[in-house]
Amino acid sequence: MTFELQSPLDMHIHLREGAMLKTVAPLSAGTFAGGVVMPNLVPPVDSLARLQAYREEVLAGVGDAVFEPYMTLFFRNYTREELEAARDHVIGIKLYPAGVTTNSEAGVAVLEEAEPTMAIMEELSIPLLVHGESGGFVMDREHEFLSVYEHIATRFPQLTIIMEHITTASALALLDRFEKLHATVTLHHLLVTLDDVAGGLLDPHLFCKPIPKRPEDRSALLAAALAAHPRLMFGSDSAPHPVDQKECCGCAAGVFTAPIAVQVLVELFEAHDRLDRLQDFISGNAQRIYGLHPPEKTVLLEKADFTVPARYGDVVPIKAGQTLSWSLSGS
Amino acid sequence: MTFELQSPLDMHIHLREGAMLKTVAPLSAGTFAGGVVMPNLVPPVDSLARLQAYREEVLAGVGDAVFEPYMTLFFRNYTREELEAARDHVIGIKLYPAGVTTNSEAGVAVLEEAEPTMAIMEELSIPLLVHGESGGFVMDREHEFLSVYEHIATRFPQLTIIMEHITTASALALLDRFEKLHATVTLHHLLVTLDDVAGGLLDPHLFCKPIPKRPEDRSALLAAALAAHPRLMFGSDSAPHPVDQKECCGCAAGVFTAPIAVQVLVELFEAHDRLDRLQDFISGNAQRIYGLHPPEKTVLLEKADFTVPARYGDVVPIKAGQTLSWSLSGS
Repeated sequence: MTFELQSPLDMHIHLREGAMLKTVAPLSAGTFAGGVVMPNLVPPVDSLARLQAYREEVLAGVGDAVFEPYMTLFFRNYTREELEAARDHVIGIKLYPAGVTTNSEAGVAVLEEAEPTMAIMEELSIPLLVHGESGGFVMDREHEFLSVYEHIATRFPQLTIIMEHITTASALALLDRFEKLHATVTLHHLLVTLDDVAGGLLDPHLFCKPIPKRPEDRSALLAAALAAHPRLMFGSDSAPHPVDQKECCGCAAGVFTAPIAVQVLVELFEAHDRLDRLQDFISGNAQRIYGLHPPEKTVLLEKADFTVPARYGDVVPIKAGQTLSWSLSGS
Repeated sequence: MTFELQSPLDMHIHLREGAMLKTVAPLSAGTFAGGVVMPNLVPPVDSLARLQAYREEVLAGVGDAVFEPYMTLFFRNYTREELEAARDHVIGIKLYPAGVTTNSEAGVAVLEEAEPTMAIMEELSIPLLVHGESGGFVMDREHEFLSVYEHIATRFPQLTIIMEHITTASALALLDRFEKLHATVTLHHLLVTLDDVAGGLLDPHLFCKPIPKRPEDRSALLAAALAAHPRLMFGSDSAPHPVDQKECCGCAAGVFTAPIAVQVLVELFEAHDRLDRLQDFISGNAQRIYGLHPPEKTVLLEKADFTVPARYGDVVPIKAGQTLSWSLSGS
């Protein structure tokens, strides 16, 4: 039995830099035709020159594989000239509230001060991608941030807004209220809840931001993904950290899913008898929402056991050592 | 400036066995006059013979220090003869729902089947100590278990019940509803919430069961402790694990607080100007509730900086490397 996907897209991906990029970029390019590359490097990608240099590094890391890196700028207050110059080189600008996640220290502290830039982005049709968490209690952070999305969507009704890596039923419900509001969801938030992170033994490899939430949140997200909710796109938020920063005493947030995301999604959608919706979830919706024309790339999978490696380089992937029921054809 | 405590008691303590016991028992005995010793060894302490042997091991581990180990049996269905024989040797019997925490696999699966033993315990005035968590979502487990406490307290109104290591405002509120219901609370649940475990970097050394809850839960517990709520006793639930079982990929639940619990409690009660309530919280309430006459032991503290060691043996304590403002006199 085989299954074919056309030009799968990962609409939220951390490719890092240097040696880590060389490890992980080919893994994303192995199964995806393109991906939205996050800009939270140190220092952040917040100029066109830096973005273009980073794009070259990504392309070099990808090598011969067909893979389009959709680049993002790190949100700061940009001038109109900067935004006009960047417009054709970015898929969007990623806003991080200051300090809420990995390498977000340079993020936005006072959202009101970001509004002039948002106004120009709306005018120039540059999408706003947002890590939407407040500084509150960890289980409440996304829910508390929803009022910010409401505010931005109301104030800038023509601005395309992407709620990145949503984790709650309430974020999902907000999609119905604003026409230009969209969301990505990760693989791991379709699979796990806080129970999997901290309900049995503590699993640092499932620790991430936003933290996985309650069973009813996961159920709502899964149902929406399986239905290929038209405002929802797949974005892995695959976030590699070296193993010594995960199995330690203050471990970093991020789940590494890139190399097996497609295979696990096929397994998941098949288990729910919704394989027919996967193409839209993993590519069609993103193409429509962003107006993308990704490179043509056929990914062929076959129903054959595949045991997930313990590590890729020094990164431990999700489901390390477990056996999946689908594998890449020829792998 | 000095402060004196008379016969502090730790009403919930894990002393383990073998080499670990030799490491941790003297640390508890260094600042406590006695402690309620948990029976969840492998295999569990579920016979009088095993309990007596374990008590000898504890006393040998404590050495010359003044320290009374208040022994507990692991709950199973005991006969009347067993309970009558054990009565003078135990402070109570500890019930674990099967599988909810470290070494609880032999616990109670069907609570109704435990009732005949509870009836005899009520008759013989043997207290019932309970790890009160359901098998539900990690943040709901204690709250969901409250109906079990209500059931037991209603069915056996003369049975002394201790809700061990409570973590929620709702458990605290339940104390008001049943005269024979009491509770212990740990040091760490007065200090931390889920934010400290998983809100920033992941901290395996603060990972424990029950999981720390919301800020409003912590506030309620702290207020009750600072007031020396008459039904509330200090019980550290200090639970040592070797560092390689904490900083790893599936790390064990438990916070190790024993060696510095008294010092941190003095610091905490002083910070809230409630030092006058600490004697009751850490000893008086337990003496009254259980009818104990602990060995006389004066613990003298002085206001002098003390840097918490990185490790005791191979166990990482809470606040490792941090400086406390109180230390044991002469230390």
